[in-house]
Amino acid sequence: MANGEALKVDRIYVTYKFTGEDPKSIADVIRAEQTIEFPYELAPSWIQEEVVGKVEEISSSDKTSHLITISYNPDVTGGELNQFLNVLWGNVSLFPNVKIVGLKLPDSFLAKFSGPRFGISGLRKLLGAETRPLVSTALKPMGSYAQTLAEMARTLALAGFDLIKDDHSLANQPWATWKERVTLISRAVKEANAVTGGKSVYAPSLNLPFDQIVDAAHTAKDLGAGALLILPGITGFDSLRKIASDDSIALPIQGHPAMLGSLITSKAEGISHGIVLGTLMRLAGADITIFPNIGGRFAFSSDHCLDITELSREKLGKLNPMFVAPAGGMNLGRIPEMIKMYGNDSALLIGGALSRGNLADNAARMCELVRAY
Amino acid sequence: MANGEALKVDRIYVTYKFTGEDPKSIADVIRAEQTIEFPYELAPSWIQEEVVGKVEEISSSDKTSHLITISYNPDVTGGELNQFLNVLWGNVSLFPNVKIVGLKLPDSFLAKFSGPRFGISGLRKLLGAETRPLVSTALKPMGSYAQTLAEMARTLALAGFDLIKDDHSLANQPWATWKERVTLISRAVKEANAVTGGKSVYAPSLNLPFDQIVDAAHTAKDLGAGALLILPGITGFDSLRKIASDDSIALPIQGHPAMLGSLITSKAEGISHGIVLGTLMRLAGADITIFPNIGGRFAFSSDHCLDITELSREKLGKLNPMFVAPAGGMNLGRIPEMIKMYGNDSALLIGGALSRGNLADNAARMCELVRAY
Repeated sequence: MANGEALKVDRIYVTYKFTGEDPKSIADVIRAEQTIEFPYELAPSWIQEEVVGKVEEISSSDKTSHLITISYNPDVTGGELNQFLNVLWGNVSLFPNVKIVGLKLPDSFLAKFSGPRFGISGLRKLLGAETRPLVSTALKPMGSYAQTLAEMARTLALAGFDLIKDDHSLANQPWATWKERVTLISRAVKEANAVTGGKSVYAPSLNLPFDQIVDAAHTAKDLGAGALLILPGITGFDSLRKIASDDSIALPIQGHPAMLGSLITSKAEGISHGIVLGTLMRLAGADITIFPNIGGRFAFSSDHCLDITELSREKLGKLNPMFVAPAGGMNLGRIPEMIKMYGNDSALLIGGALSRGNLADNAARMCELVRAY
Repeated sequence: MANGEALKVDRIYVTYKFTGEDPKSIADVIRAEQTIEFPYELAPSWIQEEVVGKVEEISSSDKTSHLITISYNPDVTGGELNQFLNVLWGNVSLFPNVKIVGLKLPDSFLAKFSGPRFGISGLRKLLGAETRPLVSTALKPMGSYAQTLAEMARTLALAGFDLIKDDHSLANQPWATWKERVTLISRAVKEANAVTGGKSVYAPSLNLPFDQIVDAAHTAKDLGAGALLILPGITGFDSLRKIASDDSIALPIQGHPAMLGSLITSKAEGISHGIVLGTLMRLAGADITIFPNIGGRFAFSSDHCLDITELSREKLGKLNPMFVAPAGGMNLGRIPEMIKMYGNDSALLIGGALSRGNLADNAARMCELVRAY
């Protein structure tokens, strides 16, 4: 872009909650820190104008609580997800008392991303689940042999589960190495589908070394896996974008929140639950976003969960909406309430609790409960 | 590993600070959450014994402040960095009031990682800097054309800078696309070295799309870049490991803390400064760890900075020690104090302040000040 060329109308708007005094000063610090990282007054005037963020609004609810909205020229991201994340939260992540609570992305920027390949309607078609919530679970515990996990998967697929994923902790451990596990489980699910005429899919985890992830996605597909699990807090949001947007892979993806907690647990710092587990997951291309439901092993509030849900479904350019997968210590008794809270566009995820008693009975009961809705 | 085989002696020890009551209960939750993510009592006894973490010690300074040490069988990581990160902080990142403050890694586990390829002594040899601190800077501001950045780099290399890196915000923006920038800057630095007989190196940023990072490292090397900059908080620690350990790349690496702030800024949650920017950076293979010094634009304390420094240099299996690069709003007046605080094994990083007045004069002055020590 040449010096002096007309500014773009479509800008990225980020709203920061700042806890402290003098919001004007911190706003000026942030808009430079996240772009030029350079003394503003020393930058050429056209860089001040075109490249540095602009403070759009500061509203204060009291002396130490402020909302600051800064807009950015999308060109500072180069249209790439990793640099977008850097503009969003790179250096300001090191500041105390600053939290991102709002994000508006212009359609011109969103058009650079393909987002969820299947989304809600695509995944419903693939799984033959026209309107009901999806039934999903995780294979565990770590330490089980691949054959044991495969037999669990068979039982769950025979019961009619839509999605059977690796537990997020399964990687390449000696008890069940990745290739052996994915081979045996994919086969077991395929055999179960042949019996039932169902469409269960198995989602192996791609929490693998950086340079093995793309190959592993292809291998998983070749072995018959019908979906994939990605942990973008560990392998990076852009690993999710790459896998989701690759036409030669073209499998639905479940996004897991491992390590993303540090972005969201603090009240004063980080990024809101909805933006991380809703907007970013969806922008990167997850078809399903997994997060800890209220009343389980974690401390998400109802507001947090509904924030994620809203941003998973709101209009976001032409990007497909995502399924939400409330999880984390759920059990069969919670199903009616979960459906009431999240509606039908949810992929209810019950893991360990299915192993309390007889797995086949519990699995059948879960499918029955969900289908009854 | 077969059921019943003898347990390994060498285990991974993680110490968590827990703020709250009943540390025994949370310890039991964490040791299962980070491994089997499954009701402990339902797991086969050999999995309880071999796979689940063990509570080694709980010490309480008062009713609501506790240190919990849990040890893990290294097999739960599969010997892979991404799964190690998952065991370390995956789901527990979603817990409130838990912070990792201690980490001990057994030599058998460390032996799976090559760590910093050059380390302190290797980088000193490469740069011809036997004992003094290194002199380093960043090319900025974003928005400058590639030719402008290349002329800055030439000036800095002529002045005798050891390391000239891309500002961490430079990615693939329209004002200076990655390939054009790396081509022109690498050439300018090479030409300057030919004039001075010096060994300045340029480190382009690899904050690029997931599937372009490895190729870009090769391209950078082919174009004459003498080092690389990686942002593991965005592209993942394992992208750093891959690039650092690849013998066909074999360039020194600067690790930048972008987005890692969320792991460390909270007092009650996250992971300590030293473990993230010292141990993890080093385990993944950075030769230099960049972090915000005291008294700059950020809020790191002296203790935080010295914690990073200590863990960058302590014995860690056979892994090379790293240079520390205190940065973030430094200026020439800070140099004596920085050398006093960090010693000679530091890569002093001054960026924007060098552009205040005449760049060539400031650059010469910085080299002179550091070499005088």
